[in-house]
Amino acid sequence: MAYRPIITLTTDFGLNDHFVGTMKGVILNIVPEAAIVDISHSVQAFDVLDGALTISQAYSYFPNGTVHIVVVDPGVGSARRPIIASSDGYHFVAPDNGVLSLVYAKEERMHVRHIMSDHYFLQPLSNTFHGRDIFAPVGAYLAKQVDSHKFGDEIEDYVKFQAPKPKAVDANRMRGVVLKVDRFGNLITNITPQDAPMLFQENAPAFKIQVGKREITDIRKVFAEGAPGEVFGILGSMGFLEIAANRGSAAQLLGVGKGTEVNIMLGEAAAAGA
Amino acid sequence: MAYRPIITLTTDFGLNDHFVGTMKGVILNIVPEAAIVDISHSVQAFDVLDGALTISQAYSYFPNGTVHIVVVDPGVGSARRPIIASSDGYHFVAPDNGVLSLVYAKEERMHVRHIMSDHYFLQPLSNTFHGRDIFAPVGAYLAKQVDSHKFGDEIEDYVKFQAPKPKAVDANRMRGVVLKVDRFGNLITNITPQDAPMLFQENAPAFKIQVGKREITDIRKVFAEGAPGEVFGILGSMGFLEIAANRGSAAQLLGVGKGTEVNIMLGEAAAAGA
Amino acid sequence: MAYRPIITLTTDFGLNDHFVGTMKGVILNIVPEAAIVDISHSVQAFDVLDGALTISQAYSYFPNGTVHIVVVDPGVGSARRPIIASSDGYHFVAPDNGVLSLVYAKEERMHVRHIMSDHYFLQPLSNTFHGRDIFAPVGAYLAKQVDSHKFGDEIEDYVKFQAPKPKAVDANRMRGVVLKVDRFGNLITNITPQDAPMLFQENAPAFKIQVGKREITDIRKVFAEGAPGEVFGILGSMGFLEIAANRGSAAQLLGVGKGTEVNIMLGEAAAAGA
Repeated sequence: MAYRPIITLTTDFGLNDHFVGTMKGVILNIVPEAAIVDISHSVQAFDVLDGALTISQAYSYFPNGTVHIVVVDPGVGSARRPIIASSDGYHFVAPDNGVLSLVYAKEERMHVRHIMSDHYFLQPLSNTFHGRDIFAPVGAYLAKQVDSHKFGDEIEDYVKFQAPKPKAVDANRMRGVVLKVDRFGNLITNITPQDAPMLFQENAPAFKIQVGKREITDIRKVFAEGAPGEVFGILGSMGFLEIAANRGSAAQLLGVGKGTEVNIMLGEAAAAGA
Repeated sequence: MAYRPIITLTTDFGLNDHFVGTMKGVILNIVPEAAIVDISHSVQAFDVLDGALTISQAYSYFPNGTVHIVVVDPGVGSARRPIIASSDGYHFVAPDNGVLSLVYAKEERMHVRHIMSDHYFLQPLSNTFHGRDIFAPVGAYLAKQVDSHKFGDEIEDYVKFQAPKPKAVDANRMRGVVLKVDRFGNLITNITPQDAPMLFQENAPAFKIQVGKREITDIRKVFAEGAPGEVFGILGSMGFLEIAANRGSAAQLLGVGKGTEVNIMLGEAAAAGA
Repeated sequence: MAYRPIITLTTDFGLNDHFVGTMKGVILNIVPEAAIVDISHSVQAFDVLDGALTISQAYSYFPNGTVHIVVVDPGVGSARRPIIASSDGYHFVAPDNGVLSLVYAKEERMHVRHIMSDHYFLQPLSNTFHGRDIFAPVGAYLAKQVDSHKFGDEIEDYVKFQAPKPKAVDANRMRGVVLKVDRFGNLITNITPQDAPMLFQENAPAFKIQVGKREITDIRKVFAEGAPGEVFGILGSMGFLEIAANRGSAAQLLGVGKGTEVNIMLGEAAAAGA
């Protein structure tokens, strides 16, 4: 079968304005045969970490050769650089503000270039909508198989932050955080099975997970195992411990949200409570 | 013209997370030439009837051969079966929880199969995101024209519920319900012209439709016929009696919503009031 | 490369119902190879001016030959006409209620036709959903390169309104209005650099922009130049003066929204205040 260019979009532009549609027009003007796929346009406004989480969860499910455009860009028009980051399978086009940090953490070899060749940009170039004027056309030309080295030189000092990791408080205590709340009110924490393997093993010893005013003592394998109104832990599809409820919103039941502390207590700490 | 695979998505996943984008990546990885169309991702969370209404309204407008993926799946990971339901024109891929009930009611001949062939699934299979791991890839292989009988055996005991029907209270009274409120605040009832033909005929005899605290005595053919602030009945595009207002929200004007009773009174009952 | 039909959709249908998905089914049934692009479905319900703004911002970024379907249609089913408006580059399919007014203002030569050939419509034709029954199929046949003159005769008396323009109050005062608030809380005014060139020139003389209870005295070139909590003016990507804040919502900070007056004071008026 013939190669079909695929371009994805991840932004904080929302769907109430013309912004996303306009970017798609720019792309189709350059590469009309492209499939354009929305990953999400509801990244929290100006929230680079939320954008980093979103693209890091979705990108690897796409075919090799996909171009991922990621625009969460509070510094639009300032000195922050536009970049192309390329792995073996994908190109990412984004502002150099760390929004690709969680991709860098997953991909072994990335080549990052500072986009300098402004003849690929829309003219006149605005100061406020580089999604339309820079990121969309550059992504489209990449999908059209223009070589990435034509856009600018490779750089090493690109912006990369560490996602917040859970911390050991003492031998029996670990403190994490809620990274985001999903559509169903599940609290996605930053705690993985590698961080706290004892939570997920068969015949786990006693533990407590304290979130807001609630202490959670059960891990379920499946949402439907939870009793009505019960709040429990579950290994979510994003690879993190989630705090959840069966057919209900854990965020509402607990009255907590993004940024809330999640404390795990094992052994004596679990027996004694917080 | 060459066959073009078309896949639609109807879910309760919302658009704030990466869920829908990830499903599309999985699909394009298998069948990159597909057109993927969103029917809605704003089905009420966990609400199987709302999902059933949504897909039943839209599916028949698509070309023959379209694969409709429907994921409203509160029992994800439990014993509920994943199924393929096939009519002469379409395949539906969904959990076996009744979300296809209103399709079954419209399509004469349906063949329903329990999806068992897990080599079509994404591996490792999660317990919490079968939209990504089962329904998306199975739908993609169907769109790629893999025979449906390769996915599993036909079953007869699939889950099918009756949509709530209006009930005759006595010779002159009928009680229905608001099935949903649409974007414009129109109240979509479960009452069809077959249920209450007298409402829609020329020179209809006197009737009253009581919803909340309001009695409605007019049926309009067109929204624009309504006076400002007036609430009236209208035969909506979904084939049901709707309670509506011209350039306004009947739901707001009446202070009612999904699940509200709708009482129709004819003859003496209409003359006497409720 | 082969011609690929591109169809865009701009409506006030929202994304919570099956409406948009159903329109796409109708289109793909006629022209399955089409690329269908959403510009926005969150036009304010019944708000023809908001729809006019949305399509006028986006349409020109699409390839020549694109068919733009615009459905903001409070008069659906009434005597208002369905029309095709054609420029050198694009076809627009819409109700004749002024929703294309800002396109007419940008395009020099438009030919407008009253759609009369009902054999292109879906049958039976509903009174309440012409997006599905008229605008989608007509747009699809246009994208399939059916000649526009086959749909009906050209008309001259189509509906066209003037967008609200800023008014000179006296030699030093101008009064504009907030046309809309975007996703980020930026206030898009109706004031262009042509209306008030002194605001945007190098070494601008003293001026004040009064919005709500705030007086704004700075124009920034880039959002990121603004200090935390500062509200400033900026030339936005839509070509209008916007009132904005860096990483914040000007609408929230000022407690104002669509329809709010924007007063510009120059010279003595600026020195004296309002």
